[in-house]
Amino acid sequence: MPSPELSAQPSVCSSAPAKPLERVDIDLGDRSYPILIGAGLLDDPTSFEAVPTASAALIVTNTTVSPLYAAALQKALAVRFRSVHTLELPDGEVHKDWPTLNLIFDALLGHGADRKTVLFALGGGVVGDMTGFAAASYMRGVPFVQVPTTLLAQVDSSVGGKTAINHPLGKNMIGAFYQPQLVLCDLATLSTLPPRELSAGLAEVIKYGPIYDMAFFDWIEANLDALSAREPAALAHAVKRSCEIKAEVVGQDERETGIRAILNFGHTFGHAIESGLGYGEWLHGEAVGCGMVMAAHLSQRLGGVDAAFVQRLTTLIARAGLPVVAPRLGAERYLELMRIDKKSEAGEIRFVVIDRPGSAVMRSAPEAMVREVLVQCGGA
Amino acid sequence: MPSPELSAQPSVCSSAPAKPLERVDIDLGDRSYPILIGAGLLDDPTSFEAVPTASAALIVTNTTVSPLYAAALQKALAVRFRSVHTLELPDGEVHKDWPTLNLIFDALLGHGADRKTVLFALGGGVVGDMTGFAAASYMRGVPFVQVPTTLLAQVDSSVGGKTAINHPLGKNMIGAFYQPQLVLCDLATLSTLPPRELSAGLAEVIKYGPIYDMAFFDWIEANLDALSAREPAALAHAVKRSCEIKAEVVGQDERETGIRAILNFGHTFGHAIESGLGYGEWLHGEAVGCGMVMAAHLSQRLGGVDAAFVQRLTTLIARAGLPVVAPRLGAERYLELMRIDKKSEAGEIRFVVIDRPGSAVMRSAPEAMVREVLVQCGGA
Repeated sequence: MPSPELSAQPSVCSSAPAKPLERVDIDLGDRSYPILIGAGLLDDPTSFEAVPTASAALIVTNTTVSPLYAAALQKALAVRFRSVHTLELPDGEVHKDWPTLNLIFDALLGHGADRKTVLFALGGGVVGDMTGFAAASYMRGVPFVQVPTTLLAQVDSSVGGKTAINHPLGKNMIGAFYQPQLVLCDLATLSTLPPRELSAGLAEVIKYGPIYDMAFFDWIEANLDALSAREPAALAHAVKRSCEIKAEVVGQDERETGIRAILNFGHTFGHAIESGLGYGEWLHGEAVGCGMVMAAHLSQRLGGVDAAFVQRLTTLIARAGLPVVAPRLGAERYLELMRIDKKSEAGEIRFVVIDRPGSAVMRSAPEAMVREVLVQCGGA
Repeated sequence: MPSPELSAQPSVCSSAPAKPLERVDIDLGDRSYPILIGAGLLDDPTSFEAVPTASAALIVTNTTVSPLYAAALQKALAVRFRSVHTLELPDGEVHKDWPTLNLIFDALLGHGADRKTVLFALGGGVVGDMTGFAAASYMRGVPFVQVPTTLLAQVDSSVGGKTAINHPLGKNMIGAFYQPQLVLCDLATLSTLPPRELSAGLAEVIKYGPIYDMAFFDWIEANLDALSAREPAALAHAVKRSCEIKAEVVGQDERETGIRAILNFGHTFGHAIESGLGYGEWLHGEAVGCGMVMAAHLSQRLGGVDAAFVQRLTTLIARAGLPVVAPRLGAERYLELMRIDKKSEAGEIRFVVIDRPGSAVMRSAPEAMVREVLVQCGGA
C-alpha cells in the first residue's frame, strides 16, 4: 500500500504549472500580445495571466473540438472568471457565415455579457476567424484569446489579426483586422489532429522557408520526421519560427497593402484548386502545398530559382504527406478561377514567386508561361 | 426681355462652388478627417476633394432621403468616380439589422466593388451607422464618407466613429469604431426635416451645455428661436460647436473607456424609454431629451446641481419641442431595462450625472434614489 506522501505526488505534479516551451511577442504598440507555445497549456490557469480581468468568459468552439478540450479549458478559466460558458458551433467552413456568427451574439446577449467579457476561440481557423470577428464587433470590441487546436491555425491565424466570415458571393469578404490579447498554442491538442490536417498545417510551415528563411527550410528538412511524429520540441520550434516570420512580415504591413502579400505564396494556384474542386474536397493546406509546387515551377521559368530548388521543395512537400500533382481542371478553368482572385488587378493575374531562395515578390506572368506550368504540373 | 448676360447669371451662380460656412478638423493621427458645414455642399464636386481617388462609389441612402438628394449627390460624384451606384435601404430604426446591412454587401459584391471603393452614407443616423459598419467590414475596411441629412446625425454621428447595427436583444450591439474620410454637413438638407426630427436633433445640441460648456448653453438659450426657424448661421454655429465639443471629448478617449461616456448624458434613461415603449414610438432625441431631465434630477439628488439648474434645463428642453415627462413604464421595467445598458458592469447600473454645471461624470446611484427619480419624473 503506497504511503500518503507517495500517492499525493502525482496530483502535485499534475497541478504544477505547465511551462511554455517557447514564447513569441507580437509588437503592435498598444495592441501587442504574446503567443505562448507548449504542451498542456490550456488546462493550466497560469497560462491566462496576460488576459484582462473580467467577471465572465465565453468559450466558442465546435462540435468536433468541444468534447476533447472544452471541459479542460472551462475548468482552467473557472479559476479566473466568475462565469464561464461554452458555445458549440457546427463544424466546417460551410458554417463560416452570418447565421452561425449570430449564434455567438445570441449567446453573449443571452448571458448578459458586458464589454469586458472575454471570448476564447477554441478550435481551428474557422472558429478563430468567427470568434475574432464576433469579438471585434460585439459592443464594438471585446477582448479575445485564441486557443488554436490545429497546426494550421497555430502557425497561420495566430498572427495577423485577420478575422472574417464568408458571403455567398465571396470568401472572407466581411470581417475586421482585430488583435487577440493572447494566443495559446497548446501542442498537446495536436495529438488528436487527423493526419491529413497535420500535413495541411505543415504546408504553411514549409512555406516560410522559400519566401523568407532558407535556414528554417534546412531545419524543416532535417526535422520533418520528428514533426510528423508530433514530437513537442520539434512542433514548438516550427510553430515559434513560423509565428516569428509571419510577425516580421505583418509588422511591416499590418493592413496588407504591400509585402504582406508574399504570405500568399502558393495561394493563387491553391485557391483555384480549392474553388475548382469545390471547397472541402482538398483541405486548404493541401491546395497550398500543391500550389507551392506550381508557383515554384513558375518561379523557375521566371529565372528566380533553378530546377534543383524546385525539386527540393517538391520533395519536402511530398514527404509532408501533401499532394504535388495538380488536379486536372483544364487550363481554361484554372485561368478563369485565378482571374477572380483578390490579388488580381484589372483582370491580370498576379502571383507570389520566389526571386531567389528565401525571398519572394509579387508579379504577373505571361499567360503562355502559366499554361506551360499548368501542363507540367498535371493541371491541364 | 432680359439680356443674355442677365439670364446667364443665375446659372453661373448655381455652378459656383458653395463655400463651407464652418469647418472642424478631427485630429486622430492617420485617421484624421474634416467636417465641412454649410448650405449647398452635397451637389458641389469640390466638396469631395479630401476623398481618396477610386474608380467606384456606392451611395447608401433610404427611401425617404433618396428622392430628395440622391440624384444631386450622384451627379456631383460622377465628376470624380467612373461608376457611381445608389442603394436605397428601407427607412427606419427597425431596419438597422443584419438583413438590411447585408443588402449593402450584396450591392458591393454585385457591382464587383474592390478594396478602394468609397461608400457614401446619405441620410440620418441609421443610414450612417449601417453604411459605416458596412465600410468597416467589407473586405475588412473600405473608405467611407458621411453626408448626414438630419440635425441629430450632423451633431452626433459626425464625430466619434461609432458604427453599429441592432440585435433583437439589444441596440447597437454589433458594430465597430471606424472613422470616415470626410463628413459633409449640408445645412440645406435640414430644410426638409420634419419638425419632430429637428427637435430631436436639438436634444443632442442642448446636451453639450450641461456636460461641457455652459457658455454654449447660454448661446442656445438665446438662439433657440433662430435654430427652430432653421436659420443657416445659427444652425452652422450649433453644428460646429457641438462637433468641436464632441471631438474634444472623443479625442481624449477614442474607444470609450473613460471620459467619452459623458456624451451619454440622458441616454441611460433615454434608452430605457425607447426600448420600453418599443423602438420608433419616441424618436431617439426625444427619449434623450426626457432622459436628460431625469438625469438632471438624479444629479440634483447626488448634490451636483441645484433645483434652479434642473428647472433651467427642463425649460430649454421643453422649448425645443421635446418631452419632459417620462412614459409610465413602472419602476421595475425601467430598472430591468437599464441593467442591460452597455455601460452597466456586473449588473450595476451606471449613470452620467452633472457634478457641476458644465461638467459630467459617470457613477452609480443607490437604487432607492433612482426609484425616487422615476416617480418624480412620471415614469413610475
